[in-house]
Amino acid sequence: MIAPTHAVFLVAAPDQPGLVARLAGFFYEAGLNIVDASNHTDPHAEGAARFYMRIVVDLAGLSAPAASATLGGSATRASLEAAFGALATSLGATYAMRATDDVAKIAILVTKDPACLYDLILRQRSGELPCEIALVLSNHPTLEPVAQSFRIPFYCLPVTPATKPEQEKQVLELCAKHHVELVVLARYMQVLTNGFLEGAPPVINIHHGFLPAFQGARPYHQAYARGVKLIGATAHYATKDLDEGPIIEQDVARVTHAMGPDEMTRVGRDVERLVLSRAVRAHLERRVIVEGLRTIVL
Amino acid sequence: MIAPTHAVFLVAAPDQPGLVARLAGFFYEAGLNIVDASNHTDPHAEGAARFYMRIVVDLAGLSAPAASATLGGSATRASLEAAFGALATSLGATYAMRATDDVAKIAILVTKDPACLYDLILRQRSGELPCEIALVLSNHPTLEPVAQSFRIPFYCLPVTPATKPEQEKQVLELCAKHHVELVVLARYMQVLTNGFLEGAPPVINIHHGFLPAFQGARPYHQAYARGVKLIGATAHYATKDLDEGPIIEQDVARVTHAMGPDEMTRVGRDVERLVLSRAVRAHLERRVIVEGLRTIVL
Amino acid sequence: MIAPTHAVFLVAAPDQPGLVARLAGFFYEAGLNIVDASNHTDPHAEGAARFYMRIVVDLAGLSAPAASATLGGSATRASLEAAFGALATSLGATYAMRATDDVAKIAILVTKDPACLYDLILRQRSGELPCEIALVLSNHPTLEPVAQSFRIPFYCLPVTPATKPEQEKQVLELCAKHHVELVVLARYMQVLTNGFLEGAPPVINIHHGFLPAFQGARPYHQAYARGVKLIGATAHYATKDLDEGPIIEQDVARVTHAMGPDEMTRVGRDVERLVLSRAVRAHLERRVIVEGLRTIVL
Amino acid sequence: MIAPTHAVFLVAAPDQPGLVARLAGFFYEAGLNIVDASNHTDPHAEGAARFYMRIVVDLAGLSAPAASATLGGSATRASLEAAFGALATSLGATYAMRATDDVAKIAILVTKDPACLYDLILRQRSGELPCEIALVLSNHPTLEPVAQSFRIPFYCLPVTPATKPEQEKQVLELCAKHHVELVVLARYMQVLTNGFLEGAPPVINIHHGFLPAFQGARPYHQAYARGVKLIGATAHYATKDLDEGPIIEQDVARVTHAMGPDEMTRVGRDVERLVLSRAVRAHLERRVIVEGLRTIVL
Repeated sequence: MIAPTHAVFLVAAPDQPGLVARLAGFFYEAGLNIVDASNHTDPHAEGAARFYMRIVVDLAGLSAPAASATLGGSATRASLEAAFGALATSLGATYAMRATDDVAKIAILVTKDPACLYDLILRQRSGELPCEIALVLSNHPTLEPVAQSFRIPFYCLPVTPATKPEQEKQVLELCAKHHVELVVLARYMQVLTNGFLEGAPPVINIHHGFLPAFQGARPYHQAYARGVKLIGATAHYATKDLDEGPIIEQDVARVTHAMGPDEMTRVGRDVERLVLSRAVRAHLERRVIVEGLRTIVL
Repeated sequence: MIAPTHAVFLVAAPDQPGLVARLAGFFYEAGLNIVDASNHTDPHAEGAARFYMRIVVDLAGLSAPAASATLGGSATRASLEAAFGALATSLGATYAMRATDDVAKIAILVTKDPACLYDLILRQRSGELPCEIALVLSNHPTLEPVAQSFRIPFYCLPVTPATKPEQEKQVLELCAKHHVELVVLARYMQVLTNGFLEGAPPVINIHHGFLPAFQGARPYHQAYARGVKLIGATAHYATKDLDEGPIIEQDVARVTHAMGPDEMTRVGRDVERLVLSRAVRAHLERRVIVEGLRTIVL
Repeated sequence: MIAPTHAVFLVAAPDQPGLVARLAGFFYEAGLNIVDASNHTDPHAEGAARFYMRIVVDLAGLSAPAASATLGGSATRASLEAAFGALATSLGATYAMRATDDVAKIAILVTKDPACLYDLILRQRSGELPCEIALVLSNHPTLEPVAQSFRIPFYCLPVTPATKPEQEKQVLELCAKHHVELVVLARYMQVLTNGFLEGAPPVINIHHGFLPAFQGARPYHQAYARGVKLIGATAHYATKDLDEGPIIEQDVARVTHAMGPDEMTRVGRDVERLVLSRAVRAHLERRVIVEGLRTIVL
Repeated sequence: MIAPTHAVFLVAAPDQPGLVARLAGFFYEAGLNIVDASNHTDPHAEGAARFYMRIVVDLAGLSAPAASATLGGSATRASLEAAFGALATSLGATYAMRATDDVAKIAILVTKDPACLYDLILRQRSGELPCEIALVLSNHPTLEPVAQSFRIPFYCLPVTPATKPEQEKQVLELCAKHHVELVVLARYMQVLTNGFLEGAPPVINIHHGFLPAFQGARPYHQAYARGVKLIGATAHYATKDLDEGPIIEQDVARVTHAMGPDEMTRVGRDVERLVLSRAVRAHLERRVIVEGLRTIVL
């Protein structure tokens, strides 16, 4: 394999002396080179200070003698994860490990608006989003040609209030069948039930409004009526409290009194696309740690 | 007088054919040169489309023959305003006229934080804010030396819940005595009563939060707890619904998970200053038309 | 016809008293309602003050009696333009008139990068860019499938230094054959000759750099080497002085020391797309007046 | 002492395995808690990859047994620095160590414009800039009252081409006498000679233009003439190549065709103040590593 294979470790722990030294020391002893690292200690966390770290190591070191010596004779990804897990436990830490050649499969849920869908597909094709788009799913057939032109499987599952439980069950089954690890709501104009969210992999939503300012429907009409001078978009993990999930990314654009709701919608659409793609990228690069209502993006 | 004297006209009217032509034609016939003009038609206004215009004319033309001919023999500011008022009435318009040499007096209300106060004073001194700062008023003596170093009268009127009606009455009396036409709340940490607002000239407030997201107290602590990625500030006219008055200007700055509430406060303070000064400037340059909850800033 | 048909007038003239009144009065007398207007007087222009105005009128009024009376019996677009042209001449003004149902045809020139091409096509399809994309032309076959998936004619005209004169001639012929009125260089990695520019309709280029900071090739590598903290993009009319044409739109994004040239390129690509589409839109909405090296965007 | 005393370590080294582990391990063994850390590896550096790290440790640990054991019986700041220096040498690293209670003295050089001077003083007073303003120095007496109102020593040293060598010598003597460690050029309208820069402590300059776009004089007039849509400011270390020193911070603001040079100057002044104060703060918080023409701001 030409491109080097890395593993990303995300760690969250109660703050304590020596954390950086012990985590970095673990990889040093195992002969695994750290190619990128960042950490943050939050003294304001409720209860007690919290420590967060993201470490990227080069897995090429697994084939060197130091790794075998440290990881017990057989230096594999599995033994690496087991050994790191033991360290994490001793620190009271939660962690996640992921190799960069273990490409995540994602599902994109849409309705009729093609803007965010094209944007995500093109960024994936250009190498900007490290994932495989396993399927596009919609409650309308409108965007089938878009998926087809990129040879991505497309599923149309119409939904009515009466059929929503059944339809959501089908969506979950499709996600399971395709081994989907992330669901991206790219202007999917349906409220998801708690049941769905409990059974689904992580879900990232783009809210076309600057949360928590304009929750609910038609935020640009709300923004116009309120005469705001900036509009924004918010990408967040979907949770059962609609529009209240942990925020991953936000941005704004300037508007004026001269713009009606349609013009604000147009300006907002550009912000939405940028914000959604940045959030999906941060998630796929394993940069996001969720801590209650907040995210730490390392 | 060296600098040319202009008059600014602000007009709001139901939309109708020929408005620009009739308004511009009025000044053309009177021999008054239009040095700046901008207008906006809002088709989304409730009820029916609304028209807004700001026109700046050079009053030097008042001494030319055309003016006398049109304005009835005696071309003065008063006869100009009377004639324009008649036109406005015929169009169903509301309007305001103000000469640039008629410098507005303002009062700045503060508590203990000097940042916004210094900012406003320095901008006024540099010619950026066309006004006279008639007085600085506070419920604390802390900032008296600041006002004194710029030779601006300073009044300290402490306030308790019991004395608030009496204190507000004194504030209104001071404003009246100094012919104050605009009150700027530059981090004045007191809620004003409806009684005060009804008796006062226009009041501009800076809300250290991105309205309507974080209303009420300690918005930066709210922003931290919610994990937002942007914080902002909003300058608005104070109305009896706290934090709900017409928005004049807003801006934001980017924050990260690494910033605690104090750091967010520091970043926010810079945004507050910029936003407040821009709003005060727009008001003083007679650019702001209030229409219900919205402003048109021409 | 359901959607109202408007005409946009762009005017540039030496400043003189009564311009707004005379221009607005012209349409008022002709019974044509002004639905949008903006103007600007630049006192800093070399030589003498210059006046610029954009006026949008509703052509529905052409069928009313007032129009016939004013425009000489036969109120048509042609007689309207003739009458307006006579007024413009009397004011020493240059002008352009264009009806909104007279949709401009554009050509998009690309090489291999699909990002800007997709962006322009999708915005055109969503109604954001009022034009018809008559052809996509490239010196490489790479993007033919993109054009095909949207059923847009695609021409591949390879070019070498030796064949450039001939290839440019073919490009000009294709533009003429398709009645192209605007050429958009959407990452067309070829320098155009003066001969081409003299024979071509207006050409808008996106420069992936914040002009005039980083001219020439590989601006993101220059930006990295210089350690800048912001990168930007500039959309401008192409002129014979490479990268020196009148600027239509610019924007920037923040970068850090942690970004290498590739990451800067990725961030820059988003800025490029936004800036190019805003510039093309401003041109198509007839908002741009070129005055020497500067543009006035009304 | 109530506030905890920290020490900031800045390290630059050739990249090599185990750097984070060895640096963090050093402090862990010495019983010094790391309260903040960030690092960056630049694979694009000329020659070979470079590693940069900023580590903030709590000096309270110096009085604990672990420190004495590790630092050789006598755990002092001096022995800590000696031990760290030995480690740095073994890694081929350069480093700097600074305790937060060792407050830097700075000199602010101005001419007549008070905006940046007030801004820096007020930020220092509010605790935002961890330094002592030892003196304000100008070639004009204009701003003496400003310095006096804050009880800061003010020196007026007029300068002509003929007296420049002598005047610069006096400036250097004043800086030495006041133990100045940073010189801030807050709109000091004089070009400094190489001789001065060689003898002076680090000098931060604010360039009122978006380097490298508009170098030299009157950048806002250049910006107007070129019709740019954004203007900016750049804070950089002064080097003998005027306006070519390593950039610390930059920002921009949007401008339009409607702004003349004066209005651009006003908008630019706000950007200048923000950018200069951010750069000075980053320097004082020991976040800036200079590497050739670039800075790494950790």
